[in-house]
Amino acid sequence: MEQLLRVQNFVVSRDGFGAGEGQSLERPFGHADPAELFAWAGATASWPRRTDPGGSRGLDDYFTRDFGRNIGAEIMGRNKFGPQRGPWQDHEWRGWWGDEPPFRTPVFVLTHHPRPSFTLSDTTFHFVDGDPASVLARAREAAAGKDVRLGGGATTIRAFLDADLVDTLHVAVSPVKLGAGVRLWESPDELRDRYHLDVVPSPSGVTHHVFWRR
Amino acid sequence: MEQLLRVQNFVVSRDGFGAGEGQSLERPFGHADPAELFAWAGATASWPRRTDPGGSRGLDDYFTRDFGRNIGAEIMGRNKFGPQRGPWQDHEWRGWWGDEPPFRTPVFVLTHHPRPSFTLSDTTFHFVDGDPASVLARAREAAAGKDVRLGGGATTIRAFLDADLVDTLHVAVSPVKLGAGVRLWESPDELRDRYHLDVVPSPSGVTHHVFWRR
Repeated sequence: MEQLLRVQNFVVSRDGFGAGEGQSLERPFGHADPAELFAWAGATASWPRRTDPGGSRGLDDYFTRDFGRNIGAEIMGRNKFGPQRGPWQDHEWRGWWGDEPPFRTPVFVLTHHPRPSFTLSDTTFHFVDGDPASVLARAREAAAGKDVRLGGGATTIRAFLDADLVDTLHVAVSPVKLGAGVRLWESPDELRDRYHLDVVPSPSGVTHHVFWRR
Repeated sequence: MEQLLRVQNFVVSRDGFGAGEGQSLERPFGHADPAELFAWAGATASWPRRTDPGGSRGLDDYFTRDFGRNIGAEIMGRNKFGPQRGPWQDHEWRGWWGDEPPFRTPVFVLTHHPRPSFTLSDTTFHFVDGDPASVLARAREAAAGKDVRLGGGATTIRAFLDADLVDTLHVAVSPVKLGAGVRLWESPDELRDRYHLDVVPSPSGVTHHVFWRR
């Protein structure tokens, strides 16, 4: 059974940035407003962090409900995990997601600085150093036959694209313009030589981009 | 936990027919060509009846791979199950799908004519008489907390819509014109008073229609 490496529900601004400048504890996406970038997802019935019943079950919900389907592990960059840089100083920091992170699988956090693994509810965070191929090999083993989600941020996705390890990508392009930040692409057309691309405008205002290998 | 009644991957012609005229053993869709109606689905990686590897992983694949997600039972009309009418004469007939039907749950076949249940691989067919609400109650119980799929055909979907029991519908409108047959609707706009509707054109030529309750 093929084990895919999948980018799911990654949001970029219309000028290609996955996050703004100046990430901090108070501003996980820097000068970008995550409420604005993720409004399309938060409105859906299947949004993992939804607290009230209801929500839309249209096109956007197909994307949010695919987030965990057949996923056995996630790989994320250190800056998705938190705002610290360099050696770990604050071991109390256990991610942005509280006591019940939405991943519900092993998560491999890329970092040059070692740190013990820990578990929150159904999610275990491991801290790993290595090139994309070797980290993917570890994540695949942990996924036990299921697919691996590449969680971002943009720099991490770029590294795995450069190593030609990504099988599918779903990127939601928001109408927001950021002007600066952490860039995924200048244009989605950059990936067309290696991937098929379906471009799907949603009534919510985002344009879903779905890539799969040629 | 809410148990939805969901129509998934139901295909109609652009003039609103779910099947043509003159169903027979040789022509399950009457004068309509199922290969033409289902070409968009058969091209995807997640099509349940796919035999070779490969297939597209774009927009259309989101719909085919949602077919079985969180489904615990299916309800289908007798004409989806087979071409016989009236009392069962040929008990050897066990559906169009061979020894491994793609449903993999209990399936409730609507009929006024009793027949013993039987099992093929992961699918058990039950033959039930009753109004839509009572059949749905049985299917919900069998689904054990999961959703119920309403499998069609068009007459069966109409009956459950008339009883206001359907929570979500995904209908793929094919560019094919049939002129006559078993009609789902004159226009998808007929459902707008009760449902939100996202209309999503696919590069494959079909237009996905996704409805959810207002």
